[in-house]
Amino acid sequence: MNSLEVCLSPRLAHLFSFEHKTAVIIDIFRATSCFVTGIANGIRSIRTVSTIDECKIWQDKGYVGAAERGGMKVEGFSLGNSPFEYTDKALAGKRVVATTTNGTLAVAKSEKAKSTILASFLNISAVAAYLRENHEDAILICAGWEGQVNLEDTVFAGALIDKLVSSHQPVGDPSSLSLISYYTSKHKLNDLLSAGEHAQRLLNLNLRKDIDFCLQWDLCDLVPVLKKGEFSL
Amino acid sequence: MNSLEVCLSPRLAHLFSFEHKTAVIIDIFRATSCFVTGIANGIRSIRTVSTIDECKIWQDKGYVGAAERGGMKVEGFSLGNSPFEYTDKALAGKRVVATTTNGTLAVAKSEKAKSTILASFLNISAVAAYLRENHEDAILICAGWEGQVNLEDTVFAGALIDKLVSSHQPVGDPSSLSLISYYTSKHKLNDLLSAGEHAQRLLNLNLRKDIDFCLQWDLCDLVPVLKKGEFSL
Repeated sequence: MNSLEVCLSPRLAHLFSFEHKTAVIIDIFRATSCFVTGIANGIRSIRTVSTIDECKIWQDKGYVGAAERGGMKVEGFSLGNSPFEYTDKALAGKRVVATTTNGTLAVAKSEKAKSTILASFLNISAVAAYLRENHEDAILICAGWEGQVNLEDTVFAGALIDKLVSSHQPVGDPSSLSLISYYTSKHKLNDLLSAGEHAQRLLNLNLRKDIDFCLQWDLCDLVPVLKKGEFSL
Repeated sequence: MNSLEVCLSPRLAHLFSFEHKTAVIIDIFRATSCFVTGIANGIRSIRTVSTIDECKIWQDKGYVGAAERGGMKVEGFSLGNSPFEYTDKALAGKRVVATTTNGTLAVAKSEKAKSTILASFLNISAVAAYLRENHEDAILICAGWEGQVNLEDTVFAGALIDKLVSSHQPVGDPSSLSLISYYTSKHKLNDLLSAGEHAQRLLNLNLRKDIDFCLQWDLCDLVPVLKKGEFSL
């Protein structure tokens, strides 16, 4: 058995040792759901950066720029943080550079990990299979919201742990909390996650369709992996 | 209705605004359980400090010194962090200075709050009554373990929220997670909390009796309040 830990917020990442482990980035609403969707639709690679300025620099180098702050697309970029933007067939073969409020910080915090992958409900079974097959200890990093622990990423962590009982031993109280929150809510998952703080924020922006999209299980059978600074297949 | 938020770790305290609010310190295993027990047994006041050195300084001034690190009493101090030490009748009327691994950090993080109180299962109904009657917004600060979110403090936060439905509106996903974890576990609370990481650490130190003691509800009807740097009645 390998071990599996849960980091409930990027602000707690310094408490974990990432060496020799696989970091699993979770930002259900909406960064990892977007990136998985984009890669499934033929985007060649996605580079995540922490700041708007960095994003501009890479956009100027020819990348398609995606920038979101506070749920909204930032002016001057081609994409925001809605999964529907990432299904555009014109993006096939393109390189994307992206910065979002929470998800890209979670990626930055995983820099010492042996490998880093992207997880969402859209590819949960593929992620579970990847982790089962690569035989490495794993840390699930929940992106949260501006440092706060959130509901959807925590519950997703529990759902993923539930798929890994044969290969990974959950370690630590945060993994227990994730499992408890998933077991409690699994029969009413969409109701619960739609009631979360972040979902409410998206609903206020008329983004119900984004929420529903991000809560679909196993829409694609792939796992974006970080290679030379960019996520790709 | 007043608002109620949950801070799942002292390392996340900077994300909250404490002004005009009541901070509720929660460190079930074992600091707040000890302090509540001590005050119930006649200790005049308890000053919490962050470091062993500060603790020594106050001990030299005539306070009874209590110091714990990693679950063990620190050499050179009269008390550690077991609630049974705090039932000693010889402590009645004495001033205590205490430093513990997690609980005293949580107190330090609440310094901007309008008032700060100590909560544990031992005085949960008294704390709920205090909060209902003082009509202030509240932030529950879970001490956790060395910065990590833990099971027992989170579940306790949920139990306290459950007692405050008529007076306080839970705000934010961490309060939802606390409530979910409490609702799920309330019929097997002692089993779940004894399985937590910190409880296992205490069991390895032969401290089963401490765990059982700290999980008793409403052993005393009092709320220690921070006044001029010390908790007292």
